Amino acid sequence: MKLASLKDGSRDGKLVVVNERLTYCTDASHIAPTLQAALDDWDHVAPKLQVLAESLSHDAVPTLRFHEHDALSPLPRAYQWADGSAYVNHVELVRKARRAKMPESFWTDPLMYQGGSDTFIAPRDPIKMRDEAYGIDMEGEIAVITGDVPMGVSAEEALSHVKLVLLVNDVSLRGLIPGELGKGFGFFQSKPSSAFSPVAVTPDELGEAWRNGKLHLPLHVDLNGQPFGRAEGGVDMTFDFGQLIAHAAKTRTLSAGTIIGSGTVSNKMGGGPGKSLADGGAGYSCIAELRVIETIENGEATTPFLKFGDTIRIEMLDGEGHSIFGAIEQTVQQAL
Amino acid sequence: MKLASLKDGSRDGKLVVVNERLTYCTDASHIAPTLQAALDDWDHVAPKLQVLAESLSHDAVPTLRFHEHDALSPLPRAYQWADGSAYVNHVELVRKARRAKMPESFWTDPLMYQGGSDTFIAPRDPIKMRDEAYGIDMEGEIAVITGDVPMGVSAEEALSHVKLVLLVNDVSLRGLIPGELGKGFGFFQSKPSSAFSPVAVTPDELGEAWRNGKLHLPLHVDLNGQPFGRAEGGVDMTFDFGQLIAHAAKTRTLSAGTIIGSGTVSNKMGGGPGKSLADGGAGYSCIAELRVIETIENGEATTPFLKFGDTIRIEMLDGEGHSIFGAIEQTVQQAL
Repeated sequence: MKLASLKDGSRDGKLVVVNERLTYCTDASHIAPTLQAALDDWDHVAPKLQVLAESLSHDAVPTLRFHEHDALSPLPRAYQWADGSAYVNHVELVRKARRAKMPESFWTDPLMYQGGSDTFIAPRDPIKMRDEAYGIDMEGEIAVITGDVPMGVSAEEALSHVKLVLLVNDVSLRGLIPGELGKGFGFFQSKPSSAFSPVAVTPDELGEAWRNGKLHLPLHVDLNGQPFGRAEGGVDMTFDFGQLIAHAAKTRTLSAGTIIGSGTVSNKMGGGPGKSLADGGAGYSCIAELRVIETIENGEATTPFLKFGDTIRIEMLDGEGHSIFGAIEQTVQQAL
Repeated sequence: MKLASLKDGSRDGKLVVVNERLTYCTDASHIAPTLQAALDDWDHVAPKLQVLAESLSHDAVPTLRFHEHDALSPLPRAYQWADGSAYVNHVELVRKARRAKMPESFWTDPLMYQGGSDTFIAPRDPIKMRDEAYGIDMEGEIAVITGDVPMGVSAEEALSHVKLVLLVNDVSLRGLIPGELGKGFGFFQSKPSSAFSPVAVTPDELGEAWRNGKLHLPLHVDLNGQPFGRAEGGVDMTFDFGQLIAHAAKTRTLSAGTIIGSGTVSNKMGGGPGKSLADGGAGYSCIAELRVIETIENGEATTPFLKFGDTIRIEMLDGEGHSIFGAIEQTVQQAL
């Protein structure tokens, strides 16, 4: 089934079940008022939502047109957003650009940071930032929402706790990252509010594309209406979601509604650095990676970060070309 | 007024108003079912809770005995927990022990990390950990809970967004910190679930002790029943809570219910490193700081981190010796 949280003036939105093609939805708030409430009692609530989803598919319940711009992020605020960096290729490239050797342990011990989760942006709302000089960038990623996860869970067992899958734009401020990481406490100001896809879906909706804890479909990332990235989610993902969840749960339990991100989807493509779509490659899911490759190849980065007025779009299509999660589509705006 | 969340089998507990001496409480769930719900609509809800608090002080409402061990952390799960390191003395000492120079900017630009906020421990519940070798330590801190804070707020304006003040034990796993910080993404596994004081109080309850964005009272930290730290909250706090909130809100809004921590309370005491209580000093709010001083003075640390069975207690008393927030009192237990 597919779930969304409609804008209704409240902080958490109203839970609806959306049909497979994202054209219609039906109110689910009599079952659970919000997605968090559903996740808090998932074993009890999910079967009821599933029945409603089947009724919706048979036109047996009242429907509304579903408009993606009416949706908040599925969890407009969450109790946890932990973002991995599972496409280690991305990390290696960034390090190569600054001539830093990547520790071998990065291939076996996942990188993960604790993100802010109190104010996610709606998928079609602008990215409001005070200063272009922060170096505004998107990061196209895949994410999962878990149920309650016990401390010390194994990677295999962890996958059974994945309740929903969705996409994320992990907005990043490249100009603030070096100073912040130099202080040693990780990201904070350099990772402002993220935005998630309009719809979150249960793994069974993904069929064969969801296997081995990875989502085997290309992530469409467009910049100002032009294709920018089509990296394969299932390729070069060094750590699957089971491993990422187990990493997060090593020393604490994870509460229902925890969101775990994959990190920027990034493909290596035959040993070398990733190629642009124009050059026959898979392109990029963030501008920073293209700039790294420009730096490696030409000695300097020429593609600028996002400017006020720029628009990014992140989406994933099924085998028939239909949007699975709806699109994150955001324009960068100056905050006043 | 003083607020607590009683254990009632739910994830967020039941909101109660507690009397000044922490002996009685009264159900406030008809005004707001949970503390988060109260914070979501604070301007509307707080005056009603205040009226209830006055009725409680006049025995004009039904009361229950208040037992601190019946309380969850005031926000048992929160949308944001951001912990500063405002007592820069603590940071400088830790660096000195490993002969690393602290950047001058640390005196002007706050250190802050994003903490996990989905599963806080109740103030009298054990710290369950799988392995003593993680180097289990407490960090006694002061924290505030904010309302909605706009992006780019000034430090002065930020103080008006402080709704509640409380204490926190920011449990830290010293053995995991070096490896994790070495990876560059900040703390994650090394900062498991924190515990907060049984009661959160509005700033007006603190009288003159709450001024200039600091809490001017000693923080009592005991280890296995022995006094360990009595560091003054108002001394050597380089960044006040207004500055910490402004730092957190530089590139994003903060949502109501955001918890901002002070970092380990630490006093310098006359230019040298902090002295133990036995030596006439203010003692320590974490074991790591004592170990640092042992290392500086004797070449090696001799005080061990917490072992299974050890108990820590964190509390703050008013001028008459009464507990303001109730006590965090936790025993370390082996997780099975």
